[in-house]
Amino acid sequence: MAASALWGSRPKTRGVVLDLIRAARTISRVELAASAGLTPPTISEVVRDLMSDGLVVEAGRGASTGGKPPTLLQLNALARYSVGIQLERNTCVIVVVDLAGRQVARTSFRGTAQMSPEKALPFLAAQVNAILDTAAVGRDRVLGVGLVSYGPQDRHAGLLLTPQPTDAWYEYPVAPRLAEILRMPVLLDNDAAAAAIGEYWLGTVDPHSTYGCIYMATGIGGGVVVAGEVYRGSSSNSVEIGHISLDVDGGECPCGNRGCLENYAGPSAVVRQALEMPGLADHLALDPTGTDFLTEFARIAAAANAGNLQARHLIERSARYLGCAAVTITSLFDLDLIVLAGPSFAVAGSIYQTLIQQEVDRRTFARRAHPVRVVPSVSGSDAAAIGGAVLVLQSELVLGRARVAAGKALSLVLPVVEATEAT
Amino acid sequence: MAASALWGSRPKTRGVVLDLIRAARTISRVELAASAGLTPPTISEVVRDLMSDGLVVEAGRGASTGGKPPTLLQLNALARYSVGIQLERNTCVIVVVDLAGRQVARTSFRGTAQMSPEKALPFLAAQVNAILDTAAVGRDRVLGVGLVSYGPQDRHAGLLLTPQPTDAWYEYPVAPRLAEILRMPVLLDNDAAAAAIGEYWLGTVDPHSTYGCIYMATGIGGGVVVAGEVYRGSSSNSVEIGHISLDVDGGECPCGNRGCLENYAGPSAVVRQALEMPGLADHLALDPTGTDFLTEFARIAAAANAGNLQARHLIERSARYLGCAAVTITSLFDLDLIVLAGPSFAVAGSIYQTLIQQEVDRRTFARRAHPVRVVPSVSGSDAAAIGGAVLVLQSELVLGRARVAAGKALSLVLPVVEATEAT
Repeated sequence: MAASALWGSRPKTRGVVLDLIRAARTISRVELAASAGLTPPTISEVVRDLMSDGLVVEAGRGASTGGKPPTLLQLNALARYSVGIQLERNTCVIVVVDLAGRQVARTSFRGTAQMSPEKALPFLAAQVNAILDTAAVGRDRVLGVGLVSYGPQDRHAGLLLTPQPTDAWYEYPVAPRLAEILRMPVLLDNDAAAAAIGEYWLGTVDPHSTYGCIYMATGIGGGVVVAGEVYRGSSSNSVEIGHISLDVDGGECPCGNRGCLENYAGPSAVVRQALEMPGLADHLALDPTGTDFLTEFARIAAAANAGNLQARHLIERSARYLGCAAVTITSLFDLDLIVLAGPSFAVAGSIYQTLIQQEVDRRTFARRAHPVRVVPSVSGSDAAAIGGAVLVLQSELVLGRARVAAGKALSLVLPVVEATEAT
Repeated sequence: MAASALWGSRPKTRGVVLDLIRAARTISRVELAASAGLTPPTISEVVRDLMSDGLVVEAGRGASTGGKPPTLLQLNALARYSVGIQLERNTCVIVVVDLAGRQVARTSFRGTAQMSPEKALPFLAAQVNAILDTAAVGRDRVLGVGLVSYGPQDRHAGLLLTPQPTDAWYEYPVAPRLAEILRMPVLLDNDAAAAAIGEYWLGTVDPHSTYGCIYMATGIGGGVVVAGEVYRGSSSNSVEIGHISLDVDGGECPCGNRGCLENYAGPSAVVRQALEMPGLADHLALDPTGTDFLTEFARIAAAANAGNLQARHLIERSARYLGCAAVTITSLFDLDLIVLAGPSFAVAGSIYQTLIQQEVDRRTFARRAHPVRVVPSVSGSDAAAIGGAVLVLQSELVLGRARVAAGKALSLVLPVVEATEAT
């Protein structure tokens, strides 16, 4: 790879042009100039730069519109890669994606459990290095790592503002520390926001849509995307749908609120409800200690799918609560689409989809203005990890925030702290 | 006034420059160039145009920074006006504001009640003409009318998508019809969104803030502003906070949802609760037919302020429900400020402010990331009407959507239908 900077003197224009090429799959220079609102000489210059950096390649000729058929351009998807890590206490997924957002490698394991960040982060880094080796992706072609987890977070400082899973994680600088170990740029973001933007990048939603994502893994999170950008709010701690109250007089939640959605509809709530049904708990051999409740939840969801009435009752109840929350975010954000993503929708996704769609159709305030569709994520359980990788691509390619020189990533969203000790 | 178009060949640049002058109150050309990121010759040209149209005037000299003290510019606030109308079944407020958003005239009366739009709109138009005459504001200086009411709406077509207050209003083209009668541009928008943007325009919130507004009149609405622009969603039917569920098993609401905030915390709910307390109902001589429930609600709020324990209990309960909903919108939109606006906060505003602030402090998900303040609107009961007028100013001045020639407004958001019958 040439030692030239990825971004020259026109980072914004380059980003716009590159994103148009990505979204179009193949496009001529004339079409690009029209779409970008730039002059043909400017487009030619930007495209020459992108080609000399290996990001864009020519891909045959398009249909003639009278004269010589135009040369088509396309993204050189294998020119750069990014890594996405979805991390929480019960699940961890790592993916490597190419410039087009396509997954080229994946690994997953149980989450951090009670592990401290001092132990968990070097382990994560080793996994990232291993998957890059396996996929034969050179580190000089990796733009960075998108680490996504639950909120609240301080996204700019790259730290978690929650004592989950243990107190040691509270305000621990997870992103700077992982960047230091990996010697790569690392950004931290919300898992549900990542899952939401991943759908956009993968081209499965209308680019002008205002849509939401409900992400259910251990907890329940949300993300909203407006015309291709994540809705952020004041501090990027938005759309915390798992902690909106469905009962003003409901039980206290560790988050501080009462009657939170998560405590009625989340996997741990469903497992708790199942353990109170002796017939069902025995039938499914549920573990009353509930340490591995995502597995137990999957067992209940599978039983519901298979027609077990007790299990179905529980999953439907969870879906109705989620439906109520879906109505709330739809009426507040005026969404036209809701995407269901994350591992806890994996098994009984169609029950959830059907019932949430019903609630939204019946109860959303603006249903006379436009319909609202409820669909499963194209990335299913991996949506957040893929979204984490996509956030890196978007940050680099569209927003043009970083400069990457040969073999060394200089900055992403976070300043990379040079390691002071050999690791 | 000169017959030149308000907007020349640089509507966007003119809008940006005009908004900077408005926000700064006084500013030099050098400061303007720096703030707008434009070259001094471009700024000089745009300012010359704005001055020749009478929108900007020179206002003395600023402090010297070494050389000759710079000439300061300011908005010629009296060069143009706009009209705001807040309309619903129980209240109607009409205001005339100048370019700076300052109120120069106001009138108010009971709302439409059961009146049909065919009767109500000519009456409204007569009121608008009367207030302009009284304030001696020539129609050639009026940019247009911002009519604001409850949702859902089709903002682009200028019609209401609700059978409130009567079926005749459902899909009735209120904005085009009022434009036709008044022979002025009329935009339709949501009352709570209008109240929210009014705060920004009047300079009472940090321009970079993400803040929300809870607007309580007959019903309860909401608006969110992100960096000076109303959050719209798919169809501008966003932030319908009055119809989010606080109890998934609660009673059916005419909106289609269950357990809606409005039915627990809104004025009609409080009056209904008061009528069930014989001591209080007798003491305050409440009318059990409840036709004028905003007046009855104000009486209960006044009694609460005066220390009546039963009344205080009811207002505090309403405030707790609103607090719960405020936590929901704060956790979803990640707000740093909530503004309380509208006539139903007028009497017992401090009880509401205190209790909503308490709930937000205790329960908001991202409270560790940043504080969230709860404040009363600077425009109180008139917030929505002033906001309606401000939406016209913003549409015209910042977004530069319209061209206004001498004595005749050609277009705003809506095409103005020429009247075919004499009115």
